[in-house]
Amino acid sequence: MTKVKFSVAGLGRIGKIHLENLLQMENVEVVAVMDPMEECRKYAQEKKIPHIASTFQELLAIAPVDAVVICSPTDTHADYVEMAAKAGIHIFCEKPLDLSMQRVVQVLEVVDKANIKLMLGFNRRFDKEFKRVHDLVKEGAVGQPHLVKITSRDPGAPPVSYIKQSGGLFLDMTIHDFDMARFVVGKEVEEVYAKGAVLVDPAIGEAGDIDTAIVTLTYTDGTMAVIDNSREAAYGYDQRIEVFGSKGMAQADNNYEDSHRLYTKQGIQGSLPLHFFLERYAAAYRSEMDSYVASLKNGNAVAVDGRDGLKSLQIGLAAIKSLKEKRPVKIVEIKN
Amino acid sequence: MTKVKFSVAGLGRIGKIHLENLLQMENVEVVAVMDPMEECRKYAQEKKIPHIASTFQELLAIAPVDAVVICSPTDTHADYVEMAAKAGIHIFCEKPLDLSMQRVVQVLEVVDKANIKLMLGFNRRFDKEFKRVHDLVKEGAVGQPHLVKITSRDPGAPPVSYIKQSGGLFLDMTIHDFDMARFVVGKEVEEVYAKGAVLVDPAIGEAGDIDTAIVTLTYTDGTMAVIDNSREAAYGYDQRIEVFGSKGMAQADNNYEDSHRLYTKQGIQGSLPLHFFLERYAAAYRSEMDSYVASLKNGNAVAVDGRDGLKSLQIGLAAIKSLKEKRPVKIVEIKN
Amino acid sequence: MTKVKFSVAGLGRIGKIHLENLLQMENVEVVAVMDPMEECRKYAQEKKIPHIASTFQELLAIAPVDAVVICSPTDTHADYVEMAAKAGIHIFCEKPLDLSMQRVVQVLEVVDKANIKLMLGFNRRFDKEFKRVHDLVKEGAVGQPHLVKITSRDPGAPPVSYIKQSGGLFLDMTIHDFDMARFVVGKEVEEVYAKGAVLVDPAIGEAGDIDTAIVTLTYTDGTMAVIDNSREAAYGYDQRIEVFGSKGMAQADNNYEDSHRLYTKQGIQGSLPLHFFLERYAAAYRSEMDSYVASLKNGNAVAVDGRDGLKSLQIGLAAIKSLKEKRPVKIVEIKN
Amino acid sequence: MTKVKFSVAGLGRIGKIHLENLLQMENVEVVAVMDPMEECRKYAQEKKIPHIASTFQELLAIAPVDAVVICSPTDTHADYVEMAAKAGIHIFCEKPLDLSMQRVVQVLEVVDKANIKLMLGFNRRFDKEFKRVHDLVKEGAVGQPHLVKITSRDPGAPPVSYIKQSGGLFLDMTIHDFDMARFVVGKEVEEVYAKGAVLVDPAIGEAGDIDTAIVTLTYTDGTMAVIDNSREAAYGYDQRIEVFGSKGMAQADNNYEDSHRLYTKQGIQGSLPLHFFLERYAAAYRSEMDSYVASLKNGNAVAVDGRDGLKSLQIGLAAIKSLKEKRPVKIVEIKN
Repeated sequence: MTKVKFSVAGLGRIGKIHLENLLQMENVEVVAVMDPMEECRKYAQEKKIPHIASTFQELLAIAPVDAVVICSPTDTHADYVEMAAKAGIHIFCEKPLDLSMQRVVQVLEVVDKANIKLMLGFNRRFDKEFKRVHDLVKEGAVGQPHLVKITSRDPGAPPVSYIKQSGGLFLDMTIHDFDMARFVVGKEVEEVYAKGAVLVDPAIGEAGDIDTAIVTLTYTDGTMAVIDNSREAAYGYDQRIEVFGSKGMAQADNNYEDSHRLYTKQGIQGSLPLHFFLERYAAAYRSEMDSYVASLKNGNAVAVDGRDGLKSLQIGLAAIKSLKEKRPVKIVEIKN
Repeated sequence: MTKVKFSVAGLGRIGKIHLENLLQMENVEVVAVMDPMEECRKYAQEKKIPHIASTFQELLAIAPVDAVVICSPTDTHADYVEMAAKAGIHIFCEKPLDLSMQRVVQVLEVVDKANIKLMLGFNRRFDKEFKRVHDLVKEGAVGQPHLVKITSRDPGAPPVSYIKQSGGLFLDMTIHDFDMARFVVGKEVEEVYAKGAVLVDPAIGEAGDIDTAIVTLTYTDGTMAVIDNSREAAYGYDQRIEVFGSKGMAQADNNYEDSHRLYTKQGIQGSLPLHFFLERYAAAYRSEMDSYVASLKNGNAVAVDGRDGLKSLQIGLAAIKSLKEKRPVKIVEIKN
Repeated sequence: MTKVKFSVAGLGRIGKIHLENLLQMENVEVVAVMDPMEECRKYAQEKKIPHIASTFQELLAIAPVDAVVICSPTDTHADYVEMAAKAGIHIFCEKPLDLSMQRVVQVLEVVDKANIKLMLGFNRRFDKEFKRVHDLVKEGAVGQPHLVKITSRDPGAPPVSYIKQSGGLFLDMTIHDFDMARFVVGKEVEEVYAKGAVLVDPAIGEAGDIDTAIVTLTYTDGTMAVIDNSREAAYGYDQRIEVFGSKGMAQADNNYEDSHRLYTKQGIQGSLPLHFFLERYAAAYRSEMDSYVASLKNGNAVAVDGRDGLKSLQIGLAAIKSLKEKRPVKIVEIKN
Repeated sequence: MTKVKFSVAGLGRIGKIHLENLLQMENVEVVAVMDPMEECRKYAQEKKIPHIASTFQELLAIAPVDAVVICSPTDTHADYVEMAAKAGIHIFCEKPLDLSMQRVVQVLEVVDKANIKLMLGFNRRFDKEFKRVHDLVKEGAVGQPHLVKITSRDPGAPPVSYIKQSGGLFLDMTIHDFDMARFVVGKEVEEVYAKGAVLVDPAIGEAGDIDTAIVTLTYTDGTMAVIDNSREAAYGYDQRIEVFGSKGMAQADNNYEDSHRLYTKQGIQGSLPLHFFLERYAAAYRSEMDSYVASLKNGNAVAVDGRDGLKSLQIGLAAIKSLKEKRPVKIVEIKN
């Protein structure tokens, strides 16, 4: 079996996870990596990566690869994807492609012409909990879905500097939930109503964002979903889902450090949730990359494509408009 | 200790529950009951109730009492409460007082003038699960509340004939959740956004109502709540709550027939929820009446007063308006 | 429908429970009660019991009844049962009939001759949790049973004075578990190995008893059971069961005050178990009496008969012998 | 940082796990492996291990290492450990060292003289669930321990051929539970009473072994433990623990494929346990090796030493004697 040759662009937190997963895969060879930071390149040296670049252009030139994993900052995604696509290289790109609909549409046109496989990093689809609920819904175990409920809360707010350039709560955080809402029932969203507040940190409000939200989605067939978000859950990362339908309900609970229970005079106690996405989704990141590599090997469609990214972005932009205009917003209102 | 003399008007499902609870209370004497139906009066005879009437007027005349429990059909509540109040009798009345804000305001004026104790039957406040979450919130265990989530689903839809006169989903079913939303965090609702659909039974849609809903409430301080409702949960009655705040989250699970788990090659299985409100809230109905009797004995304020009924009705009417006008509705828009 | 006429002998904690349950039953009339203590007779007066006696002889003479409920001290059970049986009265008697095998055999002979229905108060058989596991086993849901595990721990030790006359841990506490071990799989015990220690309170050891135990039972077909006991669980009453068999496992969890969970920075917290048997088995006591009254009405065999009491006593005496002789003891070794 | 040079002897199921974990560790270099089977050596070639041997002698000669991991068949452990110790190499050896007490004592003498670090593979001590309960007990969260309960059931029986040479249930399976019983409360066992039966497969009985057991252990201070085992749990691998003490109880539940719950008209359903030890203890195997490497780096004592292996073997031999002689057996009765 010939190995798939990979490069990785960007060795931040997520880049390192993808790199380490790729290094453990039998059918993959990591040929080159790129990062503008000295420290990250040193890390790559220790991992004995053959070629190490400091710019994306250099990465493309340094060694021929079959596919590139893009984990660089969000504002570089669109350009890098276009460059790689034009070079005929398959692409795995962390979400989002861009914060502008128009730019994403442009990029996807380039990708389509290049006839390469672009997969987006909506890692939660590969989490065993969410996947199980998705599978149960698909098998018809809950009948016709009526209500989807997604709880998604972070253990702590990111720095305000991050929020200023991330697109805000709906585009950097809820966007995962928008993708999940589409994925779990396999339906498209038609309308969004977003309600938000600044309850965690006034500095977030001053930066023009919110930190707490309830978003109601309506699918094209009348099914409804509700997402609740907070930037700061005192007890830690909270990721749960529930799909209620004509024949029943499928739920997945949050994941915890362990299952222990301590019974004392004071009551029953148990462990906190797994700290954050790195811990909770460690296995999902690996499955995600396995899925992408399998697509490259067997020629099947990727599990999450560019259009999935576009759709989630569109819902996110509709949520922003809804919050601003204090009314439900149709997805078709979001054109670019 | 002198016993509180009670009469009961209306011996339907709920009337019988209240009657049987009153009969078991040491400090209560049930002096008289009233029901227009022969069969219900026969039931009262078997219970050896001293005086049995067939109209409310007759009930008031047949024997002097301290308090009356009104469980007759909704459209009689306002009149009976006024009559009892004018007679100087304390009143426990099943919700709602009336489906019209204007009429409720009138009735409450009569009650105020009469200087009697009126308590409304929002039984869920006395359920051990909801009460516990309320108490934890009150003690500050979750810090400042940010999000309230209420799941409320019935095991099956009522007959369409009932829906036609009940005021519909928001006034006959969600109204309990509106009261709970106010109760659990002790805050007032300012705005309502209701999204609904007919997903269970088209006949409900033909009758002008919905059977599935997601309602977002905003409190005056920016805190948010979301309620999800269905007229038909295949697995049975589903009553859960979650309050998320700056210091943590308090949840109460649904209640089940038993806690057993069966582990086989096919997976793990457990029991269904307690069937419906009579089973789930049996103890709550008793605590509710204990609470009312205690108020009469010790002169304290009742746990749920006429204004609580008015507030929930107002939220319900705002939800109806929101659904119709497809926009968030301020509570102050609902005047009568 | 004619009502079954009942009397109640002994109005201690359990006697009051049975009396109040009987008073609520439609097909029952409580005609007379008996208690040597003034205070208990006063309680009966408040309950408006027609006839109130202070000795068992007086109770039998004061009014004719169909059945008597015996809740007097253990050392009176055998005599009272014989007296009632000879008077042709059906009997519900709290366990045990007596602490001596020989005496129990004598009493059962009198009962057999009298042709009356004697039921013993092994209330746990009527608990919804244990009953469910029993039913699942009976339906074959776990296949052929291999292992039974019973956890039974009290919230606090009784006074040493009680222990001195109760027969000790195995006869006053574990005896319920011995009955459960037989009931849940419908098999007879052949051998007992008991290991015990004084870990809770040295005063219990000084009184000649133990406060902590692990008892291994072997059924006639090789199936095994293990019971673990403690006189003092800091977190409260703990009553669980597990039956493991060729096709799977059925478990029932302990019962808790409520299902709430509080999530904070410190972890997850929940409520304590229901305090003790009065709280945990309140519904079981009612079902137990319903079952007995139904047997009297329909002529069916009682759910728990004198032989069940004899068998549990025999297992208890074997456990005592095993503990003393530090070896497994066959049930057939216990003759009287 | 200089890397610790490792070799691995035996590339069966467990050997592969240890090899792959070692390959992922930053501070470790796998220099050589050995396996008599062609296929396993091929696997090592794919992993690019520098030196590949087919006998243990060859392995010791082929390249200098700091430590060797021994995962060859049980009957080679003693010889290999002695050879490695004499060569001055640190050793990680899968349990047991040998099935004979006498031989184990001999081996440990050689190890002691060689002054090398020998760690035994009792992997469950590194499982997050068991470790948590151990830590809670150590911190005093349950007070003085009174009762330990260990449930340990395999998803299916091994081939009878394996059972014939493994030492049987108590030495190949329960031995993990004996180690856990010592570890979780940090106390030594004084007496064993074992009860067993052939309930799963008569062929196991014909091979002279049992497949179902309840073993009661008594510690030197009177604390008691009970272990229940089955070779075949229809629902899968079942690994639970409970420690009950003067201040409360700490429990750890089994681990499941996922946390989902499906609610339908038929009841509630959930996922099965993780299939077997490879799935359940994947992370524990990694932590175990991390712990061993850390001991080598920092000079601390190993987490599980030769004496721990000796103690568990002794308890296992006592259990065999107890089963045979149908009586409790003191550990001191087992001399060799």
